[in-house]
Amino acid sequence: MTGQTLLLTAGEPAGIGPDLCLQLADEDVVIVGDPRVLMERAERLSLAVPIDIVDADAPGVHEPGRLRVIAFPFPGAVVPGKLDTANARALLDGLRFAAEACLAEQYHGLVTAPLQKSVVNDAGIPFSGHTEFLAEVTAAAMPVMLLVADSLRVALATTHLPLSAVPAAITEQRLTQVLKVLDHDLRHRFDIAQPSIVVCGLNPHAGEGGHLGSEDDAVIRPVVEALSAAGMNLRGPLPADTAFTPSAGQHDAVLAMYHDQGLPVLKYAGFGHAVNVTLGLPVVRTSVDHGTALDIAGTGKADVGSLRAAVQLARVLA
Amino acid sequence: MTGQTLLLTAGEPAGIGPDLCLQLADEDVVIVGDPRVLMERAERLSLAVPIDIVDADAPGVHEPGRLRVIAFPFPGAVVPGKLDTANARALLDGLRFAAEACLAEQYHGLVTAPLQKSVVNDAGIPFSGHTEFLAEVTAAAMPVMLLVADSLRVALATTHLPLSAVPAAITEQRLTQVLKVLDHDLRHRFDIAQPSIVVCGLNPHAGEGGHLGSEDDAVIRPVVEALSAAGMNLRGPLPADTAFTPSAGQHDAVLAMYHDQGLPVLKYAGFGHAVNVTLGLPVVRTSVDHGTALDIAGTGKADVGSLRAAVQLARVLA
Repeated sequence: MTGQTLLLTAGEPAGIGPDLCLQLADEDVVIVGDPRVLMERAERLSLAVPIDIVDADAPGVHEPGRLRVIAFPFPGAVVPGKLDTANARALLDGLRFAAEACLAEQYHGLVTAPLQKSVVNDAGIPFSGHTEFLAEVTAAAMPVMLLVADSLRVALATTHLPLSAVPAAITEQRLTQVLKVLDHDLRHRFDIAQPSIVVCGLNPHAGEGGHLGSEDDAVIRPVVEALSAAGMNLRGPLPADTAFTPSAGQHDAVLAMYHDQGLPVLKYAGFGHAVNVTLGLPVVRTSVDHGTALDIAGTGKADVGSLRAAVQLARVLA
Repeated sequence: MTGQTLLLTAGEPAGIGPDLCLQLADEDVVIVGDPRVLMERAERLSLAVPIDIVDADAPGVHEPGRLRVIAFPFPGAVVPGKLDTANARALLDGLRFAAEACLAEQYHGLVTAPLQKSVVNDAGIPFSGHTEFLAEVTAAAMPVMLLVADSLRVALATTHLPLSAVPAAITEQRLTQVLKVLDHDLRHRFDIAQPSIVVCGLNPHAGEGGHLGSEDDAVIRPVVEALSAAGMNLRGPLPADTAFTPSAGQHDAVLAMYHDQGLPVLKYAGFGHAVNVTLGLPVVRTSVDHGTALDIAGTGKADVGSLRAAVQLARVLA
């Protein structure tokens, strides 16, 4: 175990990941990526950040202003803004290495810069995203996406599904598993003794007594009641448009039923510094709340706020 | 036409509507409701607000501190917190009168305190809500719900539907009509010369190029392109979790595809002072963003913030 050192995967090399990593030379992180890409990007951005290639088992001590890198070189071309499928495999190799190094407790946690899902798929590799990949590598049964912005925490019961597939995905089994993971990780990662969780309804007005849909009373309410009886501190199903207001009272997290019920308010509240945390993994993993921003890679316009917040939160959770 | 006088329906008498009306004696409004209920509520709340019963055609001039009331007496019992179906008909009679008086341009606009939909239905009267009722009385083809909180305006393409019914309701025809009403009323009610509107996608990440649902590219994008070609200033479909952030740029309104995609962020941003505006009507109509709050009627705990904001916005729009 190397002090409070975190691994930081640099993500898609054609995106802003390398640009952001170069702005974190003041943090005790070890980058997983291609040293040549980082050096080229530093030159392009006129940043004087020395790059030290280190061994994963002996990364040495952090010297502020210098970046340590565990080398996963890309075989393809790396041009800001231009995706190359030849690099997809090396990117996933680095990610797998990083997850396994954290699992082996060589590092305290994993922070991931954004990758581009489409280029991995275009390379012929089945891939649903960071979260699912890390769950597989670490043998986690139910990864749960949590977004954090200041004191607001929003977890999702379903993530990247077409809206029409959401109602069928809200099952008693899934909700029960998600709430158990959320409650457990709020206790053990966030150090909250008795986490208070607000559970949103699926339908507008949480179904308004069945007038606007049946799932709230038929599926969500029985789960909330059963887990409350088992000792969790839950309230719901609450209408989503009151769940985030002061009228919902104090809470440690809101569980939204789907992506666009929870994330618009979270990103409105925490624009530029929201952090994505994967719960339910045996390792700490945080991430930015934004994409690869191919259009501004290498321009100096990328804002490191979210990645810096992700590093700082990972340190708190680790 | 009576100066800047607005009509204010007092709403469900067992709810907080009467409590709120009594706090607006400083505004140039004429209440539509039961004078006896208002007097009893004033006594209960120890508020010294004289109630003047006036004629609809000659309401007289507003004297600050006094409330003018056009009388629609309730035949049933009126007890705070206790609904009585015997009062439902009188409540709708008052609402119909108020809409027609605004349509006849006797008053500048209509502000509505909350009513309880269930008690109207329990009285055996088919009724979907204020908006649909007013659309019918004023022969409006496409009422559009717009919520306003400070500079944030959020319109809804669909309103009170079960989530599972939303995808099928997002048709080119509906979106075209809703966007035309929204653009028209932003110009003519809000006095915005060339309204800029951000249109949300239906699916997470606006469908991510078809990987997360087809409606964004198949239904929403063609409408946005056709109306943009016809001169509207539209952007979209945008992912809902970026549509409300600064990265979406300046805009005059966001069109959300459904209730819980747009309202959680609006009510988070404008808690306690958000206003509901019905667009597409031939009269100005604003409303509170909350319900009847039966549990605090008559207690003095009701917050007049949203109703006061509704009155003030109606005056601006009129």
